[in-house]
Amino acid sequence: MVPDPFGRRLAAVRRKVEALDLDGVLISLPENRYYLSGFEAGDMQLTESSGFLVIGSSRQMLLTDFRYQEEAAHQARGYDLVIYKEGWNQVLPDLFRDLEIRRLGVEAGHLTHKRFLEVQEALERVWEGKAEAVGLEGLVEELRMVKEPEELDRIRAAVALTEQVFDRVWQDLRPGVTEKEVAWEIEAGIRRAGAEAVSFPPIVGSGPNGALPHAVPTDRKIAAEDAVVLDLGARLRLYCSDMTRTWLGPRVPQKMREIYGIVREAQLAAMEAIRPGIDSHEVDRIARGIIERAGYGDAFGHGLGHGVGLAVHEKPGYGKKNSVILRENMVLTVEPGIYLPGLGGVRLENMVRVTASGCESLNRDAWFLER
Amino acid sequence: MVPDPFGRRLAAVRRKVEALDLDGVLISLPENRYYLSGFEAGDMQLTESSGFLVIGSSRQMLLTDFRYQEEAAHQARGYDLVIYKEGWNQVLPDLFRDLEIRRLGVEAGHLTHKRFLEVQEALERVWEGKAEAVGLEGLVEELRMVKEPEELDRIRAAVALTEQVFDRVWQDLRPGVTEKEVAWEIEAGIRRAGAEAVSFPPIVGSGPNGALPHAVPTDRKIAAEDAVVLDLGARLRLYCSDMTRTWLGPRVPQKMREIYGIVREAQLAAMEAIRPGIDSHEVDRIARGIIERAGYGDAFGHGLGHGVGLAVHEKPGYGKKNSVILRENMVLTVEPGIYLPGLGGVRLENMVRVTASGCESLNRDAWFLER
Repeated sequence: MVPDPFGRRLAAVRRKVEALDLDGVLISLPENRYYLSGFEAGDMQLTESSGFLVIGSSRQMLLTDFRYQEEAAHQARGYDLVIYKEGWNQVLPDLFRDLEIRRLGVEAGHLTHKRFLEVQEALERVWEGKAEAVGLEGLVEELRMVKEPEELDRIRAAVALTEQVFDRVWQDLRPGVTEKEVAWEIEAGIRRAGAEAVSFPPIVGSGPNGALPHAVPTDRKIAAEDAVVLDLGARLRLYCSDMTRTWLGPRVPQKMREIYGIVREAQLAAMEAIRPGIDSHEVDRIARGIIERAGYGDAFGHGLGHGVGLAVHEKPGYGKKNSVILRENMVLTVEPGIYLPGLGGVRLENMVRVTASGCESLNRDAWFLER
Repeated sequence: MVPDPFGRRLAAVRRKVEALDLDGVLISLPENRYYLSGFEAGDMQLTESSGFLVIGSSRQMLLTDFRYQEEAAHQARGYDLVIYKEGWNQVLPDLFRDLEIRRLGVEAGHLTHKRFLEVQEALERVWEGKAEAVGLEGLVEELRMVKEPEELDRIRAAVALTEQVFDRVWQDLRPGVTEKEVAWEIEAGIRRAGAEAVSFPPIVGSGPNGALPHAVPTDRKIAAEDAVVLDLGARLRLYCSDMTRTWLGPRVPQKMREIYGIVREAQLAAMEAIRPGIDSHEVDRIARGIIERAGYGDAFGHGLGHGVGLAVHEKPGYGKKNSVILRENMVLTVEPGIYLPGLGGVRLENMVRVTASGCESLNRDAWFLER
């Protein structure tokens, strides 16, 4: 028996797997692995997995290596452990035979092509060709979109921690300090406040560097004429936060103040529009329309935001191709921005929860321009 | 013209691509992307790429999105930029047509199965089926195994920084402090010393936690009876360091001191054996033999080490399946360990460079037990 909440989620996955006429599914994405089993290990690097779930119709296995054996046994209750020594190739065939898996779903957007071929080969060896690996997309990610109460608690805690750290950083912000110094104050603050990690390396983009939406902090000193984009987040008990504010220096050009007002207007319009039943891409178009009508359409080159949860970027998206109909307890960022090469950028980002009738900002939705 | 060292490496890749009878290669692994182009962006998360190289017989392109446009133009000199908006699918067919790429190598151990299928589809569309994506392994990683002088300088700097930080941590280590406190002292020290990042989250495994080779630091207080495994590394100017020492408390059981001696003996024997021309797996067997003869063969569950460079874990390996014949200027860790569940662990790790006739420890190879 897999204890809740993992057991409940596992049952939901099994229903989807059955509906797809599959005998099982292989889970490789770390967030999905945790979501279904409780096994907390991340992957050390892109090409190095700390384990896989194989979920059959009535049994579930966690494949990992020696290094994670003790953690896995402790965390993934109800899962049978399979420890492999020289890669997983040796254990896959027996596993597929024991669990009678002929048609196996795999996570096509995460599993490498090499591993896909290894899975296919193992299936074909056991069932003499009458077997198939089937690429799936978003099977578990779609379940993860709607947050459970316990997940919302953790997300709120991560947001609250981030805001506390941000308040101190904001108070200390003044011309003369470097981007790197501010970024380190953010990171050290987040860690000292008890988070496991930053959810991504903080972005501190001052003056012209603010025009790079993913600026790496430099030794540039913040100037009185600058707008400074600060984008930060924490990971606390595995759940992420993500927020952006833009600081305006005492001598910032009037143009940047105007842009700030436009971005803020776009953000408020989006938050006004978010409610259950609306297509997320429609929300993006509402915010984008405001920026376009102000003449800055080309300067808003990214989407309106993304879901946040176990991953700092997750479903749902706001794009033409990855939009969804919003539902209660989805959690998304709302982060319009305007970037002017050579001059600077403004981005404002809140995390919001879709409520029964609208949307709630998980951040204090302060109007920082007035401070 | 792509400037050196990137141009020189690119030429070496082109020679390998031609020898494989391919028209080009797609590079997705961030370390390889940098190694061949100078584009420094990492991937934000496992499922989110910040760009791709497409290398044809006479032209080379960097595909990325709006967010990285300015950095890419600045860093990847000699590459033509292709900016995609809604994913890369829209730009692939034209690219394959323009560069006349019919047979394209891809990095099978990194590219996701989904992207592999997208590449294949684009190729087939352009060339009406007479085209093919070919999974490759280690094409660039094998070049990266032998370090250039400039790379060795960066690695030495990362090692020196890590040792400085370690010295302070070691002096402060005493019963009563928690694993988390020590881990944070390491991480903050590495960052304050000027590194971009830790090369992996520091491991501080005290007492029984030391038996988990990849222990996540806890609130456990270090005790006088403990052995404490400290495994840490820095990333400085993109290159990594990796070192492990084991601290023995003033009242540590005699058994742990014995184990320490055995691990050290295994490490010294391995360093003695390393030289150009030896198979790395033979080195692993020499170290393992010492631990086995002492009766702890089952307690050394991982390989002897790994290469280090742009990635903290890279080729060459020491395993039966991934060993290589060592060559001058390869850089590897030598890190035997013995782990006794419930009691604790000992691991000692140096980084070494293969010299013209033997091996050089990049770490000060101190004998900490005597201190």
